Amino acid sequence: MERNIFKNISPLDHRYSIPEEEFKDLSYYLSEEAVIRTQAEVELALIKVLHKRGFCGIEVVKEVKEAVKTITPEEVYKEEQKTRHNIRALVNCIRNRVSPEARPFVHFSATSVDIMDTSAAIRYRDAAEKLILPALKDLMTVLLEVAWTERKTIQIGRTHGQHAVPITFGFALSLYISRLGQQMEKIRKAAANLRGKMAGAVGAYNASSLFIDDPIQFEKDVLAELGLKPAPISSQIVQPEYVLDFVHTLVSTFGILANFADDMRHLQRTEIDEVGEYFAPDQIGSSTMPHKRNPVNYENVKSMYKEFMPRMVTLYLDQISEHQRDLTNSASGRFVVEIIAGLVLSIRRLTRVISNMWVNREQMKANFDKTRESFIAEPLYILLAGYGHPDAHEAVRLKTLKAKETGKTVYQLMLEDEEMKKYWDRFTDEQKLLIQNPERYLGQAVEKTEFIVREWKEKLKNF
Amino acid sequence: MERNIFKNISPLDHRYSIPEEEFKDLSYYLSEEAVIRTQAEVELALIKVLHKRGFCGIEVVKEVKEAVKTITPEEVYKEEQKTRHNIRALVNCIRNRVSPEARPFVHFSATSVDIMDTSAAIRYRDAAEKLILPALKDLMTVLLEVAWTERKTIQIGRTHGQHAVPITFGFALSLYISRLGQQMEKIRKAAANLRGKMAGAVGAYNASSLFIDDPIQFEKDVLAELGLKPAPISSQIVQPEYVLDFVHTLVSTFGILANFADDMRHLQRTEIDEVGEYFAPDQIGSSTMPHKRNPVNYENVKSMYKEFMPRMVTLYLDQISEHQRDLTNSASGRFVVEIIAGLVLSIRRLTRVISNMWVNREQMKANFDKTRESFIAEPLYILLAGYGHPDAHEAVRLKTLKAKETGKTVYQLMLEDEEMKKYWDRFTDEQKLLIQNPERYLGQAVEKTEFIVREWKEKLKNF
Amino acid sequence: MERNIFKNISPLDHRYSIPEEEFKDLSYYLSEEAVIRTQAEVELALIKVLHKRGFCGIEVVKEVKEAVKTITPEEVYKEEQKTRHNIRALVNCIRNRVSPEARPFVHFSATSVDIMDTSAAIRYRDAAEKLILPALKDLMTVLLEVAWTERKTIQIGRTHGQHAVPITFGFALSLYISRLGQQMEKIRKAAANLRGKMAGAVGAYNASSLFIDDPIQFEKDVLAELGLKPAPISSQIVQPEYVLDFVHTLVSTFGILANFADDMRHLQRTEIDEVGEYFAPDQIGSSTMPHKRNPVNYENVKSMYKEFMPRMVTLYLDQISEHQRDLTNSASGRFVVEIIAGLVLSIRRLTRVISNMWVNREQMKANFDKTRESFIAEPLYILLAGYGHPDAHEAVRLKTLKAKETGKTVYQLMLEDEEMKKYWDRFTDEQKLLIQNPERYLGQAVEKTEFIVREWKEKLKNF
Amino acid sequence: MERNIFKNISPLDHRYSIPEEEFKDLSYYLSEEAVIRTQAEVELALIKVLHKRGFCGIEVVKEVKEAVKTITPEEVYKEEQKTRHNIRALVNCIRNRVSPEARPFVHFSATSVDIMDTSAAIRYRDAAEKLILPALKDLMTVLLEVAWTERKTIQIGRTHGQHAVPITFGFALSLYISRLGQQMEKIRKAAANLRGKMAGAVGAYNASSLFIDDPIQFEKDVLAELGLKPAPISSQIVQPEYVLDFVHTLVSTFGILANFADDMRHLQRTEIDEVGEYFAPDQIGSSTMPHKRNPVNYENVKSMYKEFMPRMVTLYLDQISEHQRDLTNSASGRFVVEIIAGLVLSIRRLTRVISNMWVNREQMKANFDKTRESFIAEPLYILLAGYGHPDAHEAVRLKTLKAKETGKTVYQLMLEDEEMKKYWDRFTDEQKLLIQNPERYLGQAVEKTEFIVREWKEKLKNF
Repeated sequence: MERNIFKNISPLDHRYSIPEEEFKDLSYYLSEEAVIRTQAEVELALIKVLHKRGFCGIEVVKEVKEAVKTITPEEVYKEEQKTRHNIRALVNCIRNRVSPEARPFVHFSATSVDIMDTSAAIRYRDAAEKLILPALKDLMTVLLEVAWTERKTIQIGRTHGQHAVPITFGFALSLYISRLGQQMEKIRKAAANLRGKMAGAVGAYNASSLFIDDPIQFEKDVLAELGLKPAPISSQIVQPEYVLDFVHTLVSTFGILANFADDMRHLQRTEIDEVGEYFAPDQIGSSTMPHKRNPVNYENVKSMYKEFMPRMVTLYLDQISEHQRDLTNSASGRFVVEIIAGLVLSIRRLTRVISNMWVNREQMKANFDKTRESFIAEPLYILLAGYGHPDAHEAVRLKTLKAKETGKTVYQLMLEDEEMKKYWDRFTDEQKLLIQNPERYLGQAVEKTEFIVREWKEKLKNF
Repeated sequence: MERNIFKNISPLDHRYSIPEEEFKDLSYYLSEEAVIRTQAEVELALIKVLHKRGFCGIEVVKEVKEAVKTITPEEVYKEEQKTRHNIRALVNCIRNRVSPEARPFVHFSATSVDIMDTSAAIRYRDAAEKLILPALKDLMTVLLEVAWTERKTIQIGRTHGQHAVPITFGFALSLYISRLGQQMEKIRKAAANLRGKMAGAVGAYNASSLFIDDPIQFEKDVLAELGLKPAPISSQIVQPEYVLDFVHTLVSTFGILANFADDMRHLQRTEIDEVGEYFAPDQIGSSTMPHKRNPVNYENVKSMYKEFMPRMVTLYLDQISEHQRDLTNSASGRFVVEIIAGLVLSIRRLTRVISNMWVNREQMKANFDKTRESFIAEPLYILLAGYGHPDAHEAVRLKTLKAKETGKTVYQLMLEDEEMKKYWDRFTDEQKLLIQNPERYLGQAVEKTEFIVREWKEKLKNF
Repeated sequence: MERNIFKNISPLDHRYSIPEEEFKDLSYYLSEEAVIRTQAEVELALIKVLHKRGFCGIEVVKEVKEAVKTITPEEVYKEEQKTRHNIRALVNCIRNRVSPEARPFVHFSATSVDIMDTSAAIRYRDAAEKLILPALKDLMTVLLEVAWTERKTIQIGRTHGQHAVPITFGFALSLYISRLGQQMEKIRKAAANLRGKMAGAVGAYNASSLFIDDPIQFEKDVLAELGLKPAPISSQIVQPEYVLDFVHTLVSTFGILANFADDMRHLQRTEIDEVGEYFAPDQIGSSTMPHKRNPVNYENVKSMYKEFMPRMVTLYLDQISEHQRDLTNSASGRFVVEIIAGLVLSIRRLTRVISNMWVNREQMKANFDKTRESFIAEPLYILLAGYGHPDAHEAVRLKTLKAKETGKTVYQLMLEDEEMKKYWDRFTDEQKLLIQNPERYLGQAVEKTEFIVREWKEKLKNF
Repeated sequence: MERNIFKNISPLDHRYSIPEEEFKDLSYYLSEEAVIRTQAEVELALIKVLHKRGFCGIEVVKEVKEAVKTITPEEVYKEEQKTRHNIRALVNCIRNRVSPEARPFVHFSATSVDIMDTSAAIRYRDAAEKLILPALKDLMTVLLEVAWTERKTIQIGRTHGQHAVPITFGFALSLYISRLGQQMEKIRKAAANLRGKMAGAVGAYNASSLFIDDPIQFEKDVLAELGLKPAPISSQIVQPEYVLDFVHTLVSTFGILANFADDMRHLQRTEIDEVGEYFAPDQIGSSTMPHKRNPVNYENVKSMYKEFMPRMVTLYLDQISEHQRDLTNSASGRFVVEIIAGLVLSIRRLTRVISNMWVNREQMKANFDKTRESFIAEPLYILLAGYGHPDAHEAVRLKTLKAKETGKTVYQLMLEDEEMKKYWDRFTDEQKLLIQNPERYLGQAVEKTEFIVREWKEKLKNF
């Protein structure tokens, strides 16, 4: 069934799935085609273990292997119109391709959800390993590069949107490296912890127990063929928390992307102008304001986050399935792939834009210089306290207010103050130098940046 | 660009958009094609008013009218690859089709969002009038039919999942008729209240004021061509609350569908068995439990609700757009159509299933009979109190406990109780009859059902 | 039961409920005391109508009126320990205070939820009229004042955080006036549309029909005593959409506050510095950075929004109540008052901070001047197009790029361009003046501001 | 500040915090008193390490230790009215209690958020270990008991609310044991992974670097005093994902409670009646329907879930903090304790109700018997297939339909069918027995239950 993509409903299936080359792999892991392909893989795994256990000959395995290769979604959907049951349709499609002798073994002792939930585990795990983590690795790689290059680039630290005390731009990026890196570890772990099942209609192995002595081991064997494990106990469905925890790692990764995008958007404000997105010469920023250089990619990432983050609520709601299962998690579960697609698209977009990021060091310095005199209040108060001033914080605070009134610097006012001067004289030369040269008030910004970059360069090798 | 639908990501673009004939109208109003078609309509409306005001001749209108007819999404997207700006791409596509004389008037004085937000208002309004409300009307029609037919069908009312006092099945349905009917009114109102804009880059009519004396009236005129009105004041975007309130009416409608679906699912439980979905003879309920008759359609509706309801959070988040606008509502805004599609699909599904609903009156009566003796406690206590018993509630409560111990009915125990018997003798014949015939304890269930059904049969004519 | 407030769990009951004088009225409408007070009011209204209908004498009304005056929550809760049913506890407390003759009429024919849901409608309606709308009126009043004062204060319009084209600061505020004003209307309407009920255990008037000929009218009469109306049909509970729609108006108001708070936070950024919060001389901005002037109030409002907005999901979830009612909306429904409290506290906080807002007109002008040359691209392109330039947008865009390279202004470059110059010569004097004086490119910013301010000054009289 | 609890706004601070003895420990870990107590602990830890490093004498440690013992929230709040800064207020309260020599060391080099975020880590960790996990352990203990007792109690498994194939009631409970047990492990792990910080205003150790050579080690030392670790890198705040992941473990635990509560509610339906809540003889189920036995505790748990689950969205939103931090996570962060309180109350409630749970084995058997003939279709089809029937599923499905028409059992119809009979004759005696005695079709339900119960009895010892 071919369709013009612009007739599709979801933006994921038109606007955000162009160009095709980028979309191809998303589709490979996340489409309905992928669903049916992996469901057929599960059916095949079942046959393999039935064979290993002596239920059927190797020819049956071969027949089914051949069969699943050629099955198309069109065919399964056509069959479903008859059966009105998707897995029974798939099973029929397989059975129609194999010999009468092989037929009874197809889907033998399995319930539909054994196939469906196991297929979902395969697809989410593969999407993690083949789509999400590689995309994050690329993003981390460009971030590591920029963080290293800018590890000594002075930037004013901002809290509440107000100038605080200095950091370096590399330090600011390192925080994101650390946060995203930890997410990679969590995603991998949660993906590896996804579970399949082959425990039958209510999870008690009722059907498989009819013929198989150790159905619990049998389940393990079938899943092992697919690189999966079962949950300790299932109902008709796999315990929902495995997928839930996995999607949580994705949604929380999205939150970090959104945080980063917001930071960059604001650093790109006309008045701040510390970073920029690369802008193609023939790109139009605004249809009527040709001078604009809008952070559209960062805005897009934030917007995608707003679209997909709330969907976590659906996953929480899907924890509830009555008794041995109701089907109210079925349609909603089909939309999880949208979250993955949205995340991967956003990671890739960020990677592209950071690859072409333009760091305006002069402006960073200029912004820093705007308040270089004022934040010195902090080290001054610490040093005064350190040398015994009994009320250093209050004393400096009053000087700050006075500085605002008089136009003098806090440093000047301090020197004019007998009481404070007394403590000042005890400062080391380096400490005095720092008070006079605020750019020296960097703490461990550079060292920490270097540490984080080295740590993640190393760790990234495992991904 | 053609694509096999099974390669699509969103279930809306494969599983839930088959069969094609049902999907066609969803696509007409909700696809990217619809976006571009309606954006072109806005550009045309602008030209029309420019002509009416004497800025350009009627030929320009004709040229643009012809131009917009033939524009395809493919073409616009191709042009966007150059411009990297969707509206500028559309404008170029129009301009390329018209004479050099006409060109300057295309998009004249407008900003991109004037076109985009106005297009969205058109599409959501039309989706309401052409998709959602007709679907709801069909649903209401079948509900009204069943409610009327079953207006006197006795059913035990259930609170906390426990038998309470009697109603009729029609009465239970009437509540949904009333709730959904009111939603229809709210949807229509919110859809009619969607606003367009033609107020320029920051909403202050900066550009249009250059040539036009009364740009505020000009905006009204352009929007009037499209059957729309502007907001009292705009930034670059239309005030977000119009779309927000509209989507709220949709999401809250979804909640009612989910409530209904849950009720029916539970009434369909094996032990309750009061209603059933029609089940095709060749339909397979379960791949291994062929005897099952699962309420899959009701489960699907509940599941779709769980998918789409949480997305309301996105709409709330999109209320925030910094200063005269940031773009972080752009991608997320594109997904609103998914909510509409999900809702329409669910309404239509419910309509189908209710059209074939099977009401098991015998079982309703049998369930009612299970507790017919016990709930009589309520009218008994009321009547005793009404005739002056100073502590009727407590007295009856104790008899209820005793009934459980002794196996006697509350009625019997009451007659054996001197004190209570005294009040019983004051009861009218009808009241005595009621206590002895619990199915008479129906209150206004029938009358209310008839009232609601009549009310909405009438009101539905306006839809 | 007295408790040290710092032992409370909810921040609403310690940190945000100091000082007491501000909290007193919140507590009056939103506390458990208010619940019990209004429930007692409903019981009294029931008695009044029973009397009007001749079921009981005027003494009964008097007795109950006296009784409900003195009932305390402590007492009701103590009784509930016995009954384990809150309304039965309340009823007992009333009954214990009245004569044996009056007792049977207390709660006569009512079910618990008749009392509880009606009480909720009273409290939410009163909270709207006595807490929320007055708070919003105060906020609107200060906003109107500032908007009027600053209606001509030039400010650069910002889209995507980038300078766009000019507005006035008053214009920016007017958008919020319009949005908040419309919310006031919606809140009032939704509050006035809250419904009570007196329709019994399953909504079919089973109990009241025992004695009363027209129980539907009887319900109307009781509710009319309280200034309320019933829904067209009820189950055990009032249709949930009335409260849902009401809370939606609150949550969407919160979104506007958050948007405003974000705007102000960003305008307060060190580099932008266009507005400021009043800062007490002895207030400490940061424990170690005494120079900071943090927008803590705006940050608080945004934070409260983040806390309360997602709770709308709870309201949506509470639309689902199985059959004639399950109780799963009971505990969650008790938390609605937290949303109201959070909103009122945030509105009041904003009012305080705007009352003391400091508008830095010089800095607004200075920021405007930073890009005054560049945005002129927009009117220039419009005017060129208006005078027939066939490709004005592209021509100006190229000049913009060249301006960036050469350091010349777009205006200069245009004059040097033969082709463009040709169209320039057709400009009116006023149009030429505007291109040379970008602050004239204000469109209808001032007029629109004046219109909106006048409109809402007038409308506010109704609140 | 004493206040009548019924004047409080939050239901957590009135209705759900009675009786006092249950609330005491919640208050100890979750109140504002706890905030200030743990903040003071952090200040003390800082002093201890300053002493160990030789910055100050042991007397300073002693003085501060004494000081923090006597500090009250009232005092800190009073001081905050002056400072308008909560941590500075606390610091002043400590400093006012110590000698002038000790004063400079109080809060030395720290920024407010060092204290606040570290305090939060302490409180959430302690709440996990002292409130949540013990409560869950109690819940698990009663669940284990019931599951063991009922491990062989036959119950019909239900999917889609329809009878499926048999399990045991203990098996159904075991799934919850497994899910909740895994949550306990996740909660413990996430709680142990909560991080503190002592890295200063922007996370770069600017202040501490002034005096301390190895501020990164210094941070570790201070946190070690409190049993905590720092994050690899911080901004002004601790990376938000630690708390986010922790709260996710709580919210997802809530989902399991809700699922359990729903299951029990439905098993308690009048028509199903398989379990019951203990009901005090003097408890009133309904004010007008004294016969009702409502599952109010399960309903309460579900309702609390609906209240608190959506608040996870707030936590996700709080991942975004601009640049080195904005304060928009401050107020919202204060409400996290409400989620913890809601969860603990719900766990405790479930424990109470399960402790008194009444399992109606007769009714379970009676319900099972209702469909005992029909679900046999599943094993029959499996066995037929296993013995080579080429189309067993379809063959049995048709018999099922015929059984419905004719009133005969599937078993009878099978025996009458030549074709099927052929395969039947190959069945083992045990297999034949099973088909004739459906209660034997239990699979591994008993074995799995025993396995899960033993596993968690063992694992629970670690909690």
